[in-house]
Amino acid sequence: MPAFDVITLGEPLLRMTPAHLRRIEQALSWDMHVAGSELNTAVGLARLGLRVGYLSRLTDNSLGRHIRATLAGHGVVTDHIVWTNEDRVGIFYMEQGAAPRASQVIYDRAGSAVSNMRPDDLPRDLFVPYAARLFHTTGISLAVSPLLYETTRAAIQRAKEAGWRVSFDINYRSKLWSYEQAAVGCQPLLELADVLFTPYRDAIRLWALGDATPEQVLGELHARYPQAVCALTVGADGALAVDPAGQTWQQPAFSAQVVDRIGGGDAFSAGFLYALLARGDTNAGEWLRWGTAAAALKYTIMGDLPLFTQAEVAALVETGEKRAGGDVVR
Amino acid sequence: MPAFDVITLGEPLLRMTPAHLRRIEQALSWDMHVAGSELNTAVGLARLGLRVGYLSRLTDNSLGRHIRATLAGHGVVTDHIVWTNEDRVGIFYMEQGAAPRASQVIYDRAGSAVSNMRPDDLPRDLFVPYAARLFHTTGISLAVSPLLYETTRAAIQRAKEAGWRVSFDINYRSKLWSYEQAAVGCQPLLELADVLFTPYRDAIRLWALGDATPEQVLGELHARYPQAVCALTVGADGALAVDPAGQTWQQPAFSAQVVDRIGGGDAFSAGFLYALLARGDTNAGEWLRWGTAAAALKYTIMGDLPLFTQAEVAALVETGEKRAGGDVVR
Amino acid sequence: MPAFDVITLGEPLLRMTPAHLRRIEQALSWDMHVAGSELNTAVGLARLGLRVGYLSRLTDNSLGRHIRATLAGHGVVTDHIVWTNEDRVGIFYMEQGAAPRASQVIYDRAGSAVSNMRPDDLPRDLFVPYAARLFHTTGISLAVSPLLYETTRAAIQRAKEAGWRVSFDINYRSKLWSYEQAAVGCQPLLELADVLFTPYRDAIRLWALGDATPEQVLGELHARYPQAVCALTVGADGALAVDPAGQTWQQPAFSAQVVDRIGGGDAFSAGFLYALLARGDTNAGEWLRWGTAAAALKYTIMGDLPLFTQAEVAALVETGEKRAGGDVVR
Amino acid sequence: MPAFDVITLGEPLLRMTPAHLRRIEQALSWDMHVAGSELNTAVGLARLGLRVGYLSRLTDNSLGRHIRATLAGHGVVTDHIVWTNEDRVGIFYMEQGAAPRASQVIYDRAGSAVSNMRPDDLPRDLFVPYAARLFHTTGISLAVSPLLYETTRAAIQRAKEAGWRVSFDINYRSKLWSYEQAAVGCQPLLELADVLFTPYRDAIRLWALGDATPEQVLGELHARYPQAVCALTVGADGALAVDPAGQTWQQPAFSAQVVDRIGGGDAFSAGFLYALLARGDTNAGEWLRWGTAAAALKYTIMGDLPLFTQAEVAALVETGEKRAGGDVVR
Amino acid sequence: MPAFDVITLGEPLLRMTPAHLRRIEQALSWDMHVAGSELNTAVGLARLGLRVGYLSRLTDNSLGRHIRATLAGHGVVTDHIVWTNEDRVGIFYMEQGAAPRASQVIYDRAGSAVSNMRPDDLPRDLFVPYAARLFHTTGISLAVSPLLYETTRAAIQRAKEAGWRVSFDINYRSKLWSYEQAAVGCQPLLELADVLFTPYRDAIRLWALGDATPEQVLGELHARYPQAVCALTVGADGALAVDPAGQTWQQPAFSAQVVDRIGGGDAFSAGFLYALLARGDTNAGEWLRWGTAAAALKYTIMGDLPLFTQAEVAALVETGEKRAGGDVVR
Amino acid sequence: MPAFDVITLGEPLLRMTPAHLRRIEQALSWDMHVAGSELNTAVGLARLGLRVGYLSRLTDNSLGRHIRATLAGHGVVTDHIVWTNEDRVGIFYMEQGAAPRASQVIYDRAGSAVSNMRPDDLPRDLFVPYAARLFHTTGISLAVSPLLYETTRAAIQRAKEAGWRVSFDINYRSKLWSYEQAAVGCQPLLELADVLFTPYRDAIRLWALGDATPEQVLGELHARYPQAVCALTVGADGALAVDPAGQTWQQPAFSAQVVDRIGGGDAFSAGFLYALLARGDTNAGEWLRWGTAAAALKYTIMGDLPLFTQAEVAALVETGEKRAGGDVVR
Repeated sequence: MPAFDVITLGEPLLRMTPAHLRRIEQALSWDMHVAGSELNTAVGLARLGLRVGYLSRLTDNSLGRHIRATLAGHGVVTDHIVWTNEDRVGIFYMEQGAAPRASQVIYDRAGSAVSNMRPDDLPRDLFVPYAARLFHTTGISLAVSPLLYETTRAAIQRAKEAGWRVSFDINYRSKLWSYEQAAVGCQPLLELADVLFTPYRDAIRLWALGDATPEQVLGELHARYPQAVCALTVGADGALAVDPAGQTWQQPAFSAQVVDRIGGGDAFSAGFLYALLARGDTNAGEWLRWGTAAAALKYTIMGDLPLFTQAEVAALVETGEKRAGGDVVR
Repeated sequence: MPAFDVITLGEPLLRMTPAHLRRIEQALSWDMHVAGSELNTAVGLARLGLRVGYLSRLTDNSLGRHIRATLAGHGVVTDHIVWTNEDRVGIFYMEQGAAPRASQVIYDRAGSAVSNMRPDDLPRDLFVPYAARLFHTTGISLAVSPLLYETTRAAIQRAKEAGWRVSFDINYRSKLWSYEQAAVGCQPLLELADVLFTPYRDAIRLWALGDATPEQVLGELHARYPQAVCALTVGADGALAVDPAGQTWQQPAFSAQVVDRIGGGDAFSAGFLYALLARGDTNAGEWLRWGTAAAALKYTIMGDLPLFTQAEVAALVETGEKRAGGDVVR
Repeated sequence: MPAFDVITLGEPLLRMTPAHLRRIEQALSWDMHVAGSELNTAVGLARLGLRVGYLSRLTDNSLGRHIRATLAGHGVVTDHIVWTNEDRVGIFYMEQGAAPRASQVIYDRAGSAVSNMRPDDLPRDLFVPYAARLFHTTGISLAVSPLLYETTRAAIQRAKEAGWRVSFDINYRSKLWSYEQAAVGCQPLLELADVLFTPYRDAIRLWALGDATPEQVLGELHARYPQAVCALTVGADGALAVDPAGQTWQQPAFSAQVVDRIGGGDAFSAGFLYALLARGDTNAGEWLRWGTAAAALKYTIMGDLPLFTQAEVAALVETGEKRAGGDVVR
Repeated sequence: MPAFDVITLGEPLLRMTPAHLRRIEQALSWDMHVAGSELNTAVGLARLGLRVGYLSRLTDNSLGRHIRATLAGHGVVTDHIVWTNEDRVGIFYMEQGAAPRASQVIYDRAGSAVSNMRPDDLPRDLFVPYAARLFHTTGISLAVSPLLYETTRAAIQRAKEAGWRVSFDINYRSKLWSYEQAAVGCQPLLELADVLFTPYRDAIRLWALGDATPEQVLGELHARYPQAVCALTVGADGALAVDPAGQTWQQPAFSAQVVDRIGGGDAFSAGFLYALLARGDTNAGEWLRWGTAAAALKYTIMGDLPLFTQAEVAALVETGEKRAGGDVVR
Repeated sequence: MPAFDVITLGEPLLRMTPAHLRRIEQALSWDMHVAGSELNTAVGLARLGLRVGYLSRLTDNSLGRHIRATLAGHGVVTDHIVWTNEDRVGIFYMEQGAAPRASQVIYDRAGSAVSNMRPDDLPRDLFVPYAARLFHTTGISLAVSPLLYETTRAAIQRAKEAGWRVSFDINYRSKLWSYEQAAVGCQPLLELADVLFTPYRDAIRLWALGDATPEQVLGELHARYPQAVCALTVGADGALAVDPAGQTWQQPAFSAQVVDRIGGGDAFSAGFLYALLARGDTNAGEWLRWGTAAAALKYTIMGDLPLFTQAEVAALVETGEKRAGGDVVR
Repeated sequence: MPAFDVITLGEPLLRMTPAHLRRIEQALSWDMHVAGSELNTAVGLARLGLRVGYLSRLTDNSLGRHIRATLAGHGVVTDHIVWTNEDRVGIFYMEQGAAPRASQVIYDRAGSAVSNMRPDDLPRDLFVPYAARLFHTTGISLAVSPLLYETTRAAIQRAKEAGWRVSFDINYRSKLWSYEQAAVGCQPLLELADVLFTPYRDAIRLWALGDATPEQVLGELHARYPQAVCALTVGADGALAVDPAGQTWQQPAFSAQVVDRIGGGDAFSAGFLYALLARGDTNAGEWLRWGTAAAALKYTIMGDLPLFTQAEVAALVETGEKRAGGDVVR
């Protein structure tokens, strides 16, 4: 049995959100959450029951230790994190929106420890056959810094060489790079992906698909990356998937009362990959359903982390959304 | 004039809810509320203006005194509470849900002081003619422990002997007993009830009524307990009632923006009994309307206690729901 | 260039709101916000980029200084505030409602420092030609005390004499005076107004217009005060305006997820006056649109102050409401 | 047995204290406590086990009800409070000091409901022989307003006529009246007092005693008011007492780690009066010891109310201060 | 190399402490901490750098998972915890004292999951030679329930059989058993101990040593348990130790500004055992110094857990107390 | 009259401190304060009544605006701040210590907007004769980045050329540069200083003065920088000063109950410079006394800002420390 089901690599962040619903500008009290796209997915996978390891580089101070403790608390193996006395722990400030006022995010991640993570920092003994079944990362790790781009590419290549599957979420961030840069930067890695996640709205822009429908975008993804299972999320319209054989599936979103929208995509990846790796489900339709259910539950949870249990996601997958939020089991 | 309008008997609880909307698993800060089904109804009745006494057994420490002070603060007479230096104050942990994630309750009530309340602990001088007009309790008091079952049954019998009316809310709790146990356990007391409350979803299961409609369930209740006014609550569909003469009424729910769903049924009982005892209203239709209005207002209030005023409930009863929550009188 | 775009005069208040969504009756922790109708509008105008001065009289203690610091922090000039060691800082307690429970406000403003502000307290050198472009106040300043009525009237007259425009929001408060008193009291000042704001529901009562439609009320306003641009707000139905030439406009409300309804009218005035004074927009239709957008954004913000930025209001004015509250730009 | 041991009369207040140790000027979050000198003493006496009634006049809103509920929660009988829809609930803002920065109090009590309490508002049936054993009030009630002065004087006279003992705490407040006014105003009531409390620092000023020692001041008190037991508190130096027979006692202060100094004098009165009325102790030395112990415990408690238990005060009275604050009984 | 340095066994608890320094009786907001004597020591040892495993039985709900996550976050291995769906998570309520008011603790641990832990629940494969170097538990585990007594005894015996050292902290709790019961109950296990901790004040009572001095008590310990290193803590007077050879050491306490006294003894054990196992220090004088330093640092930390770092304890051990709390390194 | 009394230049920071006294590692709730050495001094000077301008470069987001609003709220003129859409707002995390655990600061200021402030960013029209009386900055501005070093040097030179006095606080930060670097880097600016502040412990190291006494260090300062008034702070031992004429003064520290030690030195500078510029005091002894009093008051205030009033500092200067922290004026 491999030591790990999944290894993820990415940038951990601390998120600061004003207490008492105040705006950032007037806030004196703040609530902190641990975050980071690949970290969120790692936590989700571990909480669903998989053995997950997290690769990153972290500053060795109380903030870095807070992040490590949170990961370990959710069962993610943190032994391969590289510690440094330099650099900093990236943070972001997040103000909850209310329509028509959008949520506001101020990223403050430049110079984070992982932005200086070098290919040499990758654990040498880990990338061997059977050490893990799948490697997961996202486009954020490519965009954070040229050095982390190199490190992430090296990790993907070594994972492939070790015979692991590779999962890649494009996870476009306009504050880190342009669509043009992202398209070029992601391309070589997308060609190596066995599983590929992307939101519809980013796919349209990345591949300049104009007003293509989700179904058309899915077709385009399959044409470009025929080796991969591709999952396309379409917000409130749910998600679609296509497998290497060209078979397609569609899954409506589970309706959810949104408490905190951030981290929904990462929870989707966690649910999808869990079903793919661990449920013995044989088709992407089931994987989509787990991803969509995981995302819906995440929306109801404060903070970025998908703090659900396997039982909660499974119940939603099986029974759909018959349950009202106000319901109480007693 | 009787000393009391209503005497209730039941288990007081402290409720702990995570602050900042966190889940229980990640919470460090908690908000406390006083709770307990019969206690909630007692507080509601006292706030509506009736003279209410609360029977229970409580541990004599700061937590017990906090509960007593809260009751007294709302005007409930606490003189008959039995104090002990043993046992404990029951608590429960409550995490607010958001659809599709249900609210989660962890009960931690085993061994509470009232679970060891014996028939001898009932105040001897209280159960006399004209000391009170009505006795109210719920199925929870039957289910908490065999000893409290005996004590509750003794109290109901003495109330009947003293010529008081008896009100009983089935209030089924799956974590305390099964439907089969509850059906058997409640039966002798239902036969003594002058007022009987039950939710539709529990009635269906308790009496194995399959897919009977609310109207059919109401008919069944009347057939089984012809001596009682029976009120059947049907969630968002409002409530129904039948009186001993077989006359039936129906009341749609008042729509409400739910802040905290727990305690709605107890507020319903408070509104219903208040109208029955104190408004001079001559038919169950009015009592239903007060119960439904009280429940709607409770849903808008954080915590289990129905912290409304008589004026607020009366205004809703009279004017319906023309008022938006955001409205401000100034 | 005039030193100020707008001078406002009014009563500052501190608002206390229970934390953790508790009702006032059970609250131990409170959240404080600076408030006051004309103060809110002043802050909105300053945040939109205008040069704004605020006239008032304040008690010279930590609470008064807190108010001054808040105003200065948002860019409002506070140099003309009259300080006193007497009187008090007015406050109000505000409990957030949830339908069908209305929000509850307990005003505690009697004897505030500004209620004893005399005409002599008005800065002598300020009311000169070109010192400002517009003077804004509301009916609250008329109703607070007879002395403040005199002072407010004197300020309006001096503003007119100095050639400034005058803006007046009727802002009826039933806890301060009756509709009859308000109608008589406002009349002489309405005749001096160049800009006139009033909600439809108050207009109906003030001028005893029975069941007149908003359009009819607008017509009546124009007939009575032909010299003024009149803006009539109709809650969720948006707003209407008529200009001295008799031309009328209509603007639907932008839908908003209400976090805190108080201060919406003041934000409306701020948006309207900003567009009128600073956008070079030539018709009241644009001013209405800015007012309506500003009000919608205010509803999403905790506290009374319209803590938006010019860019946020402009974006809503231009793009309408395509943006969901949960959206995150990143 | 009399219905009451003690009846007190006074002004209830709400106290607002900044959370997180911030100064008032920068505070956004506040913590609320119920307060008021005679109210504090009433709560202390009730918690020590006496039957206590509180006379006052309160505005009938959520704030007034919060005060009433707090009193009732501690066992004080609130049936004789006069309710009004007018006036206001007095408050004060309190900022904790740290040497050399003194604590700061901003009183905002003008126009409180009790300031308009008339002699006619005193309950007619209460002031009869044997209804109570002792009436207690303080100089604050004399100073709040001329009307309350009359009402307080009437209450004292009726108490005397009913054969109750009268207890009076001078409780000088420089923000309410001058020493000269206080000396004149208190004089007729001091002559009626059976128990008289005053701090040394105020006594010196009230009776212009220059640099008299505490012992000399005590002698002076005895000379002026030979009918009374007089207790003189001397801060960290403890307290002294003289009885009508001229016997004197002295009691050093119990050392205490001060959490909140406000309310220490009121706790002293509660401890002293409790011992005098209920302990069967035959001399003022014991009463002093209970007063001093009660004050010391109060200093360790956040808020104005003396939230100790009888057992806690008794333990300190008996064992002295052998116990460290950090000690834990487990 | 053994898999573990230390295995501990004990009862985990959640501690609830009122926020804002309120007393339990008036608290609405609470702050939660993970606690438990052996758990505290396990966390301290893990944070100092040792490999530590924790044996216990926990209810599988959000509260149990919170405890597990906290342990794992600090690096304690939780793989051997036995999970159950029954019983409950023990809690205690803790109110911070201030002299002369003692801290107050309300234990509510009856029926906790670990009280029903059976010898069979001990992991079969763990108690083998070289799997760990030392087993640590305390008298609390003996006192919680007869069943846990058996389980704890079995664990100690297996540890001995496996050749591990055994460490035992008497940790007397008067609310769990009497001194007589404790003396009898601990005796057979003390005879097996290689390391023995006890406070002076408990030793005096347990062995009825009258007014023996600490030095005499140490001698008595050595006489009774000559096989063990015995450490005797004497509060502010520091600690003493004697080794099997009869050599004695003394260590004054490091002065500390107490933020939270609970957990000091557990931190002492952690520091002492760490030095004994991992520092290569050859005498008990050094172990005492580490224990005393760890305890002093714990006193400055809110909550029961010794959240120091190895560097912090080492610095205190080396440099003594030259550093003021207010010092800032920057 | 010059437009400004003082112009300061420096780096603004946001400080995050864990709520509820938790350590950084376990904190989920945080309290925010505005900070920065020169900013603190600017706020202190403005609150004491001087006209103060603050020069810096700030990122134009909600965090930057929060800082600006705080400055403006305290009366500091912020018109000359240079705004950018790039870089970031520097922050630091601060954990309150308790002896023997030192307070812990994690600086996260690299890449702050001001670190990229260029000489060209200095306002061209400001540095003219009579525009201000004094320019103040600290060694932190020299150490933040080579570019800010240049900009700070340019500002000092222009201030000198404009005939302003120059005040310089060495304010050594070991996390920014070494003593050797600081000695070299500060040297050219110290030669331009008219007022020079330094703590004794840094002076010893900067000029390698071995075990020189404070008096000897003061002599050395005078020998090296004879043109300047030099103030040497010696912690709890107060402060010393020497003027260009060689006259020396000594001032013991005012004892203070420390709530928050950070910012004491900046408050000292504010008090000293205020007395020097505005009190008409003719000797450095008076300036020292104001500086020392301001520092003592700052220690009692949570956060970095010296939120005292002129009246509070003046009272301490005049009366010394007769006032206990627990004293209440009422």
